[in-house]
Amino acid sequence: MKDLPVGIFDSGVGGLTVVKEVLKLMPFEDVVYLGDTARVPYGIRSKETVTRYAIENTEFLLSIGIKMIIIACNTVSAVAIEEVSSRVDIPVVGVIKPGALAALRVTRNHRIGVIGTETTINSSTYQRELKKLDPDIEVFVKACPLFVPLVEEGLTGGEIAELVVRYYLDEMKDNGIDTLVLGCTHYPLLKAVIRDVVGPEVVLIDSAVETAEAARDILKEIDLLRQTNPSPSRRFFVTDSPERFRSVGERFLGQSLDMVEKVQIPLRNPVSQKL
Amino acid sequence: MKDLPVGIFDSGVGGLTVVKEVLKLMPFEDVVYLGDTARVPYGIRSKETVTRYAIENTEFLLSIGIKMIIIACNTVSAVAIEEVSSRVDIPVVGVIKPGALAALRVTRNHRIGVIGTETTINSSTYQRELKKLDPDIEVFVKACPLFVPLVEEGLTGGEIAELVVRYYLDEMKDNGIDTLVLGCTHYPLLKAVIRDVVGPEVVLIDSAVETAEAARDILKEIDLLRQTNPSPSRRFFVTDSPERFRSVGERFLGQSLDMVEKVQIPLRNPVSQKL
Repeated sequence: MKDLPVGIFDSGVGGLTVVKEVLKLMPFEDVVYLGDTARVPYGIRSKETVTRYAIENTEFLLSIGIKMIIIACNTVSAVAIEEVSSRVDIPVVGVIKPGALAALRVTRNHRIGVIGTETTINSSTYQRELKKLDPDIEVFVKACPLFVPLVEEGLTGGEIAELVVRYYLDEMKDNGIDTLVLGCTHYPLLKAVIRDVVGPEVVLIDSAVETAEAARDILKEIDLLRQTNPSPSRRFFVTDSPERFRSVGERFLGQSLDMVEKVQIPLRNPVSQKL
Repeated sequence: MKDLPVGIFDSGVGGLTVVKEVLKLMPFEDVVYLGDTARVPYGIRSKETVTRYAIENTEFLLSIGIKMIIIACNTVSAVAIEEVSSRVDIPVVGVIKPGALAALRVTRNHRIGVIGTETTINSSTYQRELKKLDPDIEVFVKACPLFVPLVEEGLTGGEIAELVVRYYLDEMKDNGIDTLVLGCTHYPLLKAVIRDVVGPEVVLIDSAVETAEAARDILKEIDLLRQTNPSPSRRFFVTDSPERFRSVGERFLGQSLDMVEKVQIPLRNPVSQKL
């Protein structure tokens, strides 16, 4: 069991920011990543559709054999993590709880902003999670549907990026928040512009690091963390052709993406009867 | 056969601009529309994935029973129309050829611009189609990946829309074109801003009208055009939840969308052995 890889999935390339931190914190783990690029983006889809896609992605990772699932996607973590958890016997880690915990550690004035996709924000998951951990917190949310296409187009700076960030976040500044959760794995690439708009006094929370830490702590606790591995493997799967994933993904991962394989999801013959 | 509906599909809401023209030109036809909203957008996906989706959508329309397929999506028309045509026994009409013919009728200086999604532009289908019809034509193309998210966000005017349109189309103006094909069904909603940027002397081609005319001409020719129908039916199907489709779609159709049903695609038990 210990020698099985850690499975990570996302709707596309965004989850590679989480992979990057996982590789840093758990260098001896084998990692299998799935980016569902044939059906990206998830953030504009209904809860039911996102849940179905999440279950199908989980089914694929289980067919490879994994010891843990990291859901490296805020939208899936917001609407489908319980459904995924209830269907598997291995630990499932999402990005929302680690991000919420980090925001609570950082805030001084108890006013936290959260930005994300339409589906993430409409689900109210961040709001619920933050309030559950600290009922006195005030949460201000905003869906920013143009951020993902902007980042995918490479427009992470310049006049257009600035104007779009202002369009969504000017009101956030007026709310007097001191902490802003970047509730979508694409958003850290807009960090510089976001900081310019909300001001340097607002701390930006990028949940990739916290998520990787949470995953490592769980593996350690259940004694499944590997301490040695002469040649750790990293396999990347996508559901659309690998070219686009490779070129956009390298900006997210911060290193080159060599082995990218294409798979068709949903699987025709699911291995697990539970799913 | 004559009494069967006309089937129309698109990746999402955009094809409703074609439905609008079909309803005007062929008021006695029953119409079945499918928007593949669970997998939209197609314009960032590979040819193989778009082709697979197109075949699965066709399979669904065939399972309803139709006499013609209108592919109301530039991306599918660009990369998958031959694959779809080769698999069915009914006429298939795409949006590219009608748009190209309209552009050739209009141009005076034989310099035509074409804008569309990444997949449409990279396929070179418009370029080939135009050159085939008139080898002397000069074609200038540009993919505009941010236009679709901009329209879906409702930002069809104002500073951001202007800046984004300028970002993509400033070079088009320098090319001295006198005709610009809006090679994506979302783009007509940006018509006013596009006209401001490229100037009033450039004619904008919206292929919805031409496509509906081509479809009507074919039905007339093979004697399948209905001349009467006491209560023509319009059925709309989507693959994600109907709410978002309904609210965004009404802007495209120009009238209210009452009957929208959700279906799961791919079908579990395809009816046709050919597909």
